[in-house]
Amino acid sequence: MSDIETSTKPATPLQGHLARVSEMLRRHHLVEDLAQRQSGTDQETDDDLIHRQHVEELQREIDALHPADVARILEALPPEDRLSVWNLVKADRDGEILLEVSDAVRESLLADMDAPEILAAAEQLDADEIADLAEDLPEDVVDQLMQRLDAPEREQLRSAMSYEDDQVGAIMDFEMVTIREDVSLEVVLRYLRRLKELPEQTDKLFVVNKDHVLTGVLPLKWLLVNDPAREVSEVMAADANTFRPEDDVFDTAQAFERYDLVSAPVVDAEGRLVGRLTIDAMVDVIREEGDAEALSRVGLREDEDIFASVWRSLRNRWTWLAINLVTAFLASRVIGLFEGSIEKLVALAALMPIVAGIGGNSGNQTITMIVRALALGQVSPEGARRLLRKEAGVALLNGVIWGGVVGLVAWLLYGNPALGLVMTAAMTLNLLLAAAMGVVIPMTLERFGRDPAMGASVMITAITDSGGFFIFLGLATIFLM
Amino acid sequence: MSDIETSTKPATPLQGHLARVSEMLRRHHLVEDLAQRQSGTDQETDDDLIHRQHVEELQREIDALHPADVARILEALPPEDRLSVWNLVKADRDGEILLEVSDAVRESLLADMDAPEILAAAEQLDADEIADLAEDLPEDVVDQLMQRLDAPEREQLRSAMSYEDDQVGAIMDFEMVTIREDVSLEVVLRYLRRLKELPEQTDKLFVVNKDHVLTGVLPLKWLLVNDPAREVSEVMAADANTFRPEDDVFDTAQAFERYDLVSAPVVDAEGRLVGRLTIDAMVDVIREEGDAEALSRVGLREDEDIFASVWRSLRNRWTWLAINLVTAFLASRVIGLFEGSIEKLVALAALMPIVAGIGGNSGNQTITMIVRALALGQVSPEGARRLLRKEAGVALLNGVIWGGVVGLVAWLLYGNPALGLVMTAAMTLNLLLAAAMGVVIPMTLERFGRDPAMGASVMITAITDSGGFFIFLGLATIFLM
Repeated sequence: MSDIETSTKPATPLQGHLARVSEMLRRHHLVEDLAQRQSGTDQETDDDLIHRQHVEELQREIDALHPADVARILEALPPEDRLSVWNLVKADRDGEILLEVSDAVRESLLADMDAPEILAAAEQLDADEIADLAEDLPEDVVDQLMQRLDAPEREQLRSAMSYEDDQVGAIMDFEMVTIREDVSLEVVLRYLRRLKELPEQTDKLFVVNKDHVLTGVLPLKWLLVNDPAREVSEVMAADANTFRPEDDVFDTAQAFERYDLVSAPVVDAEGRLVGRLTIDAMVDVIREEGDAEALSRVGLREDEDIFASVWRSLRNRWTWLAINLVTAFLASRVIGLFEGSIEKLVALAALMPIVAGIGGNSGNQTITMIVRALALGQVSPEGARRLLRKEAGVALLNGVIWGGVVGLVAWLLYGNPALGLVMTAAMTLNLLLAAAMGVVIPMTLERFGRDPAMGASVMITAITDSGGFFIFLGLATIFLM
Repeated sequence: MSDIETSTKPATPLQGHLARVSEMLRRHHLVEDLAQRQSGTDQETDDDLIHRQHVEELQREIDALHPADVARILEALPPEDRLSVWNLVKADRDGEILLEVSDAVRESLLADMDAPEILAAAEQLDADEIADLAEDLPEDVVDQLMQRLDAPEREQLRSAMSYEDDQVGAIMDFEMVTIREDVSLEVVLRYLRRLKELPEQTDKLFVVNKDHVLTGVLPLKWLLVNDPAREVSEVMAADANTFRPEDDVFDTAQAFERYDLVSAPVVDAEGRLVGRLTIDAMVDVIREEGDAEALSRVGLREDEDIFASVWRSLRNRWTWLAINLVTAFLASRVIGLFEGSIEKLVALAALMPIVAGIGGNSGNQTITMIVRALALGQVSPEGARRLLRKEAGVALLNGVIWGGVVGLVAWLLYGNPALGLVMTAAMTLNLLLAAAMGVVIPMTLERFGRDPAMGASVMITAITDSGGFFIFLGLATIFLM
């Protein structure tokens, strides 16, 4: 074990675990191959023994790992190996690990489990965690799960499942320690000792009245440093950050970031405490937001298991390719309009992709800036006008300077000064078009309540391609023909 | 105040604050304009009064806001308004707010402050926080700051400044509560009460021996639920997650995510406790990682203040534009090689951007998948071969199916079946090229220790553009001329 670790020098402990598990799986396969080739001979029992030893070694390695690490390893293994390892995971850890893996991998693992196994795994979980799995489970398994829960848990599960994925209600948990405000800290300390255990990520207790309305929060820190004789009401913070089940999770995650929260109460319209949010769930939201943006930027619909079948990958990627084919055809038709000019001056064909390409890149830079500013709530209506002016200024300067360079090179290359001038003018105009669209597209999407990033890149590229070809070939037709 | 809030229906409280501050600034400007126009008349004193009232109202609004909210508002305001608001911020909050704003905005605020103001602001901060600001400060101000600190703080500041931005040592803080393992929990509870206050984000106490070597951690939860008569050594966790000052911050942030940590000790090579990491700093790292990826993908060097001057923006964006011009020229020269063929069959000019464009998009999808998998440590050497096979399979199917559609349309459009066949073949080959490069480029960058995302998109586009033109025009020259 140690020789592998030293020879591969893993950059992180996780990579070390993965290398060891992969190595064990490889040896495991070797033994299996050997056993298959020699089957029927008296050596079989020896091989069986070696095989069992390897499996046991692998089992020990896996048992020693944190569920989150097992999840990462499962994601990194090809399907057959993934299922081999998954079958070695002890049943009482199945639930936790299912929560940790990506959606795509979770589906592949659940597909390998039968209903009793799934029910056993779910029994280790809280209602809010079951809700996270529920959408990937067969309906009859969800029904059976419901029946096994007690009444309050069933209510929690139903509540968690009633919210959209991007609402606070879908990611809040129900593990809260509540106290009354008219008791002393000493009483609270004794109460906590009787609980034996506090929920994960507990940094504050929630103070509620008899109607379960939240009246404040008591950070554990304050409980620890204050005189135990003082009353909760004197020490607690009455103006805590609270959230509503309908709140947007991305805005909520930003609030956690801004106010450095570890946990926060969720209250309903009447101020009653209905759940709790914790930083670990918020970190997942922040990570997901970045991932979703990176994926949607290149038109991937969803997180893709890297070992997904070719067919699944095709489905994930087709929407974007289809849209792109359409926009590429439009650009192609624009060029088609000017075939006469290209026949007369074939240099146009070689130069036109430069005009279109630079416009697209510049437009994508502008869009990236604006999308980020919108996500951070930085753009007011006056701000928008200023931004448009600024981006137009940048485009104009880039057009004159870089367009000038390109025009000069075109002149030298083709010995045609007029062609150089047309090139410079077309680049400047296309950069201005890209700047204007780079501001207008995401702001318009935002105004109509759409995600400003989604598809913005496709649109800008479509516009700067068709626009760039039209401007360049149009100017060339007017001035050079 | 309330009428503005109801009329604009802010989506988040922060947007409400921003709307109110902007409105107050607008009124403030109106009064200033009025005062200027009427200057010299006896109305001046009245206007002065109204002006003062507006400033006071704005001041109250700002004073009531959390420093992080003031930071967001400063980022969202154009430069003049930003400085107006900044000058209204009470001096003792300057430091905190400077820590919260983006690098670009921080520079603009610091540029407006003189040395005594900066020193006063820094005095409110801890050594690790000063270290975050130090790189933006004039050297003589840093020297003066050093002199004002006491010896241990100076040592901390020097330590924090000695690490790279992407090392744990640069973002750890020094606010730690340490205890001995041979005392009872009761003693710990009494000790904490004497401290009066615990550092932010304290969820565990660090247990050290007389040489300051970390021997375990005591979560506050366990301190609270266990019998006060028990000894720290019986209750503490001896196998806590620890980090080293030289560790990579992105790997560390992933560990915080995987193990749901709130805080963790940082130890040196001898196991001595040297600092503390907290989840709020890790959340910033995760957010930054996503932002940096989005920015570097479109070739933006750094976070750009959305109200930055045109000149600054140009500098931020030029590198990428220059690289792109070079690759666009290369692609243009490839087309130039085939000018003879285009002159004979001008349809080639209209169709060639389709081949190049689809290849680029498909390659970017592949790269996005691989970069994510690499970031999560999911790709082993065997995995790489499988991935290449899978991506090639996807490319082949896409080429045959979509390339077939495109070929058919080209045939119908130009009445030339051979042209359609060349189109289909060229698309398939360029998609295969894109798939291969989409896997190979990020994996090669990773192998040589470079950031696999950085520049990968530029490279793939350059290859699929030039390659697409070459394949399509080359096939056309061979089979159609």
